[in-house]
Order: sequence, then structure tokens, then C-alpha cells
Amino acid sequence: MPTYRLDLAYDGTAFHGYATQPGLRTVQEEFERALGRQVGDVITVVAGRTDRGVHADGQVVCFSLREEIDTERVLRSLNRQLGQEMAVHDLRRVDDDFHARFSATARRYRYEILNRAIHDPLRARSTWHIAEPLDVAAMNEAAALFVGEHDFASFCRKRVGASTVRDVLWAEWRRVDDIVELSIAANGFCHQMVRSVVAVVVEVGRGRLAPADVKAILDATDRRRGRGTAPPQGLTLIGVGYPGEPFDPPDWITSTP
Amino acid sequence: MPTYRLDLAYDGTAFHGYATQPGLRTVQEEFERALGRQVGDVITVVAGRTDRGVHADGQVVCFSLREEIDTERVLRSLNRQLGQEMAVHDLRRVDDDFHARFSATARRYRYEILNRAIHDPLRARSTWHIAEPLDVAAMNEAAALFVGEHDFASFCRKRVGASTVRDVLWAEWRRVDDIVELSIAANGFCHQMVRSVVAVVVEVGRGRLAPADVKAILDATDRRRGRGTAPPQGLTLIGVGYPGEPFDPPDWITSTP
Repeated sequence: MPTYRLDLAYDGTAFHGYATQPGLRTVQEEFERALGRQVGDVITVVAGRTDRGVHADGQVVCFSLREEIDTERVLRSLNRQLGQEMAVHDLRRVDDDFHARFSATARRYRYEILNRAIHDPLRARSTWHIAEPLDVAAMNEAAALFVGEHDFASFCRKRVGASTVRDVLWAEWRRVDDIVELSIAANGFCHQMVRSVVAVVVEVGRGRLAPADVKAILDATDRRRGRGTAPPQGLTLIGVGYPGEPFDPPDWITSTP
Repeated sequence: MPTYRLDLAYDGTAFHGYATQPGLRTVQEEFERALGRQVGDVITVVAGRTDRGVHADGQVVCFSLREEIDTERVLRSLNRQLGQEMAVHDLRRVDDDFHARFSATARRYRYEILNRAIHDPLRARSTWHIAEPLDVAAMNEAAALFVGEHDFASFCRKRVGASTVRDVLWAEWRRVDDIVELSIAANGFCHQMVRSVVAVVVEVGRGRLAPADVKAILDATDRRRGRGTAPPQGLTLIGVGYPGEPFDPPDWITSTP
């Protein structure tokens, strides 16, 4: 059975997250319906289920078919059919043992904050607006505490029996004009981890927590010590790493392991 | 009667343009309703009526009131009330003879094209997607032809009795990664002028017209010689110039008069 990998982008604003839920509009349902029209009924596997309102630029999906397909033609047809809210960047045959989720060795996310007095209608769908000036240097001091292997229980919505230990490859903020942007990568993220990290680090940027407080929250491994979750629209899944493929940080990252 | 100037931004996607039209959702209607709740019924004047789907970052509106208002308080209340699709950048008292439209001496627009193979869901609302590679150097050769005073009849939706002569201050394209962006400013623009200019210049970027053809279209002063209009979502009104205020091009512009 030939197996295919598909790289997908979407604007998560109007979707109730990636994963199919009865009666709700989801990315998976609309995407699988469009794909099904091209290749017949199909079961897909996704690298990372994004939450309601979260975007993706480099989501990865895989599926197996009985027969080979013309990937170029299917990619073009899918992009015509999916409309403005989704786009397929790439579709190609992969090894039969490729699994979008279990083969993945790393994930990379971006979180964008609009940091100026007045909000911006043209960036409302992709940023968290914070009017108060943020101290990016202090935020980077806090972000550096997450790099390496830690138990992120204070930053995870708990799932019974699931480990909350993750290995963060890099986590760094930068300011570009009025945008304060986080790039973060790890071998994996537990549920709501990036948005929980952002919520705590923003408190440092506002001067309400010190980096040492963040260390204490991390060490506590207790979700109640966190600061909830940052809003979803600032978050985008940028890419997924697989064995034998380059998985590089953006060139402005200085804290790589 | 104290007169006030208000600087307004909006995402034009879900509006049928700026100007009130019965039965349709417009920027003016929603904005005046919100303003009316703060200052009582009011008649406003706008610098530039943008078309359906066109955005603004620096639209200017003025209005006169019987009594003075606390501008700081009204600005804050308006921004809370207007939601995500609009934002008020500034509100201040001006000379009683200030008129948002007739006092204006210049307008500046941006047009953004996403120039890569696959469209981008996160930028679909603010860009025109063109998959074919564009020759930006050729586009700048064509754009330079518009600078100075010309009769733009080939690029204007005709209004009876209205002049189509305008003085273009600068018109220049640049590529930043996968975005091809136009900055254009003039003493004024006739109806659909920027989008009509973009439609013709893009034909040059595609190699279907030469810059000399653009000169011939301009000289013909005949709307039928144009290439229609580029789609609205790429267009944003960036700012309006008034006497005694700086009105500078972006720092990357080389062709200033």
C-alpha cells in the first residue's frame, strides 16, 4: 500500500481545532472530505492536533492508499478545492513505515504578540494584543529556563497516564517593530504547553514575575502553579521534524543546544 | 463648534466598503454608530472612501460637536466598543476649518502580492496571490512612468465632470521574501486608480506587456485600454497628508521626486 505525506497550512480562526468533532467545523473534516473527492475514502494521521483557533504553516498528514496517485495533479486539485483557509504545500510518496505522528522527532511553533498601545485589525487573527510594553530581555531569561529536558507538568493539561517530560530544543523571543515573537521547538509538546509557557513568560515581560519565579513554577510540576493559557490566535505550528531531514532554528536564534 | 480628527484602521474583508449603503454592512455605519454612543449623533467626513474589501491603516475622519469632549476617554471607549475589525489610532482636536477630505494634500497606499507557488491561508485576506514569478525590475520600470502629473483616465472609473488628472509623488515596488509590495502616493486618486495601475503593471511583471505598452495605455486616456482592476484585498490606505505635517515615503523608496 503506497503511503503519502502531505504538508498542510491553515488559518485556524474559523475552525474548532484540527481533530474531527461531531457537529463542529474542523480542519480534519473539511480536509479529509476534499482529499476523499480526489483519492476515495481515506484514513489520515496528523502530526499535531492543533486546538481551536490555532494556525498551521507546516502541519504534516499521512495516509495510505491501495493504488498510486499522480501527486502533482492531486496537489493542484486539492488547492483549487480547499479555498482560502487551507493550502497544501507538498504531497509526496514516502516509505510505507512513515507515520506523521510517531515518526516525528521534533515540532516547532511560533507565538506572536502585538505589543503596542492600539490593536491592529489587520493582525487581529494572528496575534495576541498586549498594550503594556514587554521586557523582551527578561522574557528571554525566563525562556532559557525551559531549554533541555524537563517535566512540564506545570504547563500541561494533564492526560491520565501520559508523561509530561519533554526536551525543548530552543525557546527564544525577539522584537521586530511592534511584534514580540517566540520561536520554540521540542521533541514534542504536551497539550496546551506552548500557550501555557507563553502565559507565564508574558508575566515576566510585564514585570509581575521574575525569572526565578518561573523556575519555581517549572520545578513545582503542578498545573495549578501556572498562569493559564495565552489566547490561541497567536500560535502557529511552523513545522515538524523527521529523521534524516534538516530541522533548523530560524537564523536569529542564538540559544541552540 | 470644536472639530475633531480621528485616525482609523480597519480590516475591510467583511465590509461593503467605507461609505454607508442601505442594507449593507459598511465601515461608516458601524463606526458612526459606535462614535454616536460616545458623543451623540454626529455627521462625519472621511478622507478617502475605500471600496469593498479594501483595508485602511491610516484613514482619517473628522467631525464637529457642540461641546468639547475628553478625547482620551472617548478614544479608549471607542476601541473597546469597535471590536477586532476596527481600531482608532488617534483622536484629537483640530482647527475648526480642518476638513478630512478637502484639506488633504496627499494619500498613500500599499498593495501586496503574495508571489509564490502555493497560496497562504494566513495572508489570504491581505494579499493577491500570483503563482507565476513576477519580474519586479520590469514592474518598477513601468511604475516610474506614472510618477508626476498625468491624466489617469485609462486607470479611473469615470465620474461625469470629474477630472482624472493626478500628481503621483512616488510609485515603487519591492520584493521582501515572497511578498511583492507597491508603495504609491499622489495628491489624490480617482476611483479604482491604484487597483487599475496594479492590474496593468502586473501584466508587465508577467512579461505580457512591455513598459512601452504601459506608456501607450497611459497616453491613450481611455479606460477601455486598461486591464481592469486588481482584487481589493491586497490594497490598504496607509495614510493621508495634510498641510504642515510630514508625509514621507517608506525608507526603501528611491524614486522620490
